[in-house]
Amino acid sequence: MGGPAARGRFITLEGGEGVGKSTQARALAEALRARGHDVIETREPGGSPGAEAIRKLLLEGADDRWSARSEALLFAAARADHVERTIRPALERGAWVVCDRFLDSSLAYQGGAGGIGPNAIRRLHAIGSDGLLPDRTLLLTLPEVETMERLARRDAAGADRIGGKDAAFHRAVADAFARIAEAEPQRVRRVDALGTPGEVTRRLLAAIADLDR
Amino acid sequence: MGGPAARGRFITLEGGEGVGKSTQARALAEALRARGHDVIETREPGGSPGAEAIRKLLLEGADDRWSARSEALLFAAARADHVERTIRPALERGAWVVCDRFLDSSLAYQGGAGGIGPNAIRRLHAIGSDGLLPDRTLLLTLPEVETMERLARRDAAGADRIGGKDAAFHRAVADAFARIAEAEPQRVRRVDALGTPGEVTRRLLAAIADLDR
Ligand SMILES: Nc1ncnc2c1ncn2[C@@H]1O[C@H](COP(=O)(O)OP(=O)(O)OP(=O)(O)O)[C@@H](O)[C@H]1O
Ligand SMILES: Nc1ncnc2c1ncn2[C@@H]1O[C@H](COP(=O)(O)OP(=O)(O)OP(=O)(O)O)[C@@H](O)[C@H]1O
Ligand SMILES: [Mg+2]
Ligand SMILES: [Mg+2]
Repeated sequence: MGGPAARGRFITLEGGEGVGKSTQARALAEALRARGHDVIETREPGGSPGAEAIRKLLLEGADDRWSARSEALLFAAARADHVERTIRPALERGAWVVCDRFLDSSLAYQGGAGGIGPNAIRRLHAIGSDGLLPDRTLLLTLPEVETMERLARRDAAGADRIGGKDAAFHRAVADAFARIAEAEPQRVRRVDALGTPGEVTRRLLAAIADLDR
Repeated sequence: MGGPAARGRFITLEGGEGVGKSTQARALAEALRARGHDVIETREPGGSPGAEAIRKLLLEGADDRWSARSEALLFAAARADHVERTIRPALERGAWVVCDRFLDSSLAYQGGAGGIGPNAIRRLHAIGSDGLLPDRTLLLTLPEVETMERLARRDAAGADRIGGKDAAFHRAVADAFARIAEAEPQRVRRVDALGTPGEVTRRLLAAIADLDR
């Protein structure tokens, strides 16, 4: 049977709302499967039974249901469960993991625009998940007007608690993502999300080509 | 109307299961009210709407539903909400807060017997609740046989997930509480919980007499 499987690759998709993360997570997972990889597609908050239960708490209720601190702790709790029960086991059996949002979303939302600071977010990730980082993070970038058009086309009824913020908030989030990409250029690659879904998927594949050996 | 009210006092009751914390929290709150104080009685996990929702997640489901890390993060999230929405507002308006379990239970369970270590628990408390500590913690101590008898008398059907552990686990928790009391003698006072409820309440009042001025 040979030795243990080589560890899989951990790829995350990041960016503000409506840039196409979920669309591309699906397409990227398909493209990697077509290349013969074992791939799991997952998302945050959620991705394991416990984390999905925490997701409900995070997305239900009034806008001020949680303070920035409680929210950051709940995201870290969900992530710890997701990492331990879904992501690490998949990587250990050799699968690729494509994850729609991960730590960088906490850094950009709860740590940046939202309020408690990136250092606290990283400490929570160290305690909860031993600081696990993706092998590659694909940051989708899109001009604000195009994002707004895509979101308008998508059913407005689906807007959740974290979705219902204003333009200044979204700009702060985009800035926070841009700073992360600058600080960690090896892990985080900015990818232009303009164009057809197929065009964007090809750019994403190019941005992880070095991992696929 | 005078100036702002003097800050209230924050008293917590700690100890293993069945030592009489809930019984004494009620009695102590009553005794303090009889002395003319504004008193709120609260408990953990819970004590605010958000924290009660997290409590449900913690107490429902299989014994291994949460890893020690996720559990510690969920307790810290609940505590952050409880502190911000219930405890601090009460203390600021001058009320006394009597709380059935608090940080030391996390130190003894998730940090000691359970697994992630007391330093991580304290870091979570710093991030979530600015490290708020009680003015006095009353640690109820009881010989193991007496605890077992009290628990046997209480309806066994009420046992929850955290309740259903074995004697070795309870001993490890008691040891962890004892170490906390040793390390922080000014804040934490050991109180003998043997005797009638009225006798125990009098000992508790004596152990906070210096705060009641
Ligand atoms: N390349 C594209 N061109 C035009 N529209 C697109 C493109 N990719 C996705 N869309 C559409 O834009 C909308 C947002 O896409 P998607 O839901 O994938 O974004 P998202 O980043 O996952 O958003 P959220 O953060 O809200 O989950 C959807 O209606 C989707 O069909
Ligand atoms: N002084 C006492 N003498 C005898 N029985 C007592 C005394 N105090 C409490 N009890 C009884 O012992 C049982 C445990 O008490 P209680 O529920 O107050 O403990 P607890 O520390 O809150 O337990 P838990 O950690 O499980 O919440 C209850 O049935 C209670 O009525
Ligand atoms: Mg999406
Ligand atoms: Mg009790």
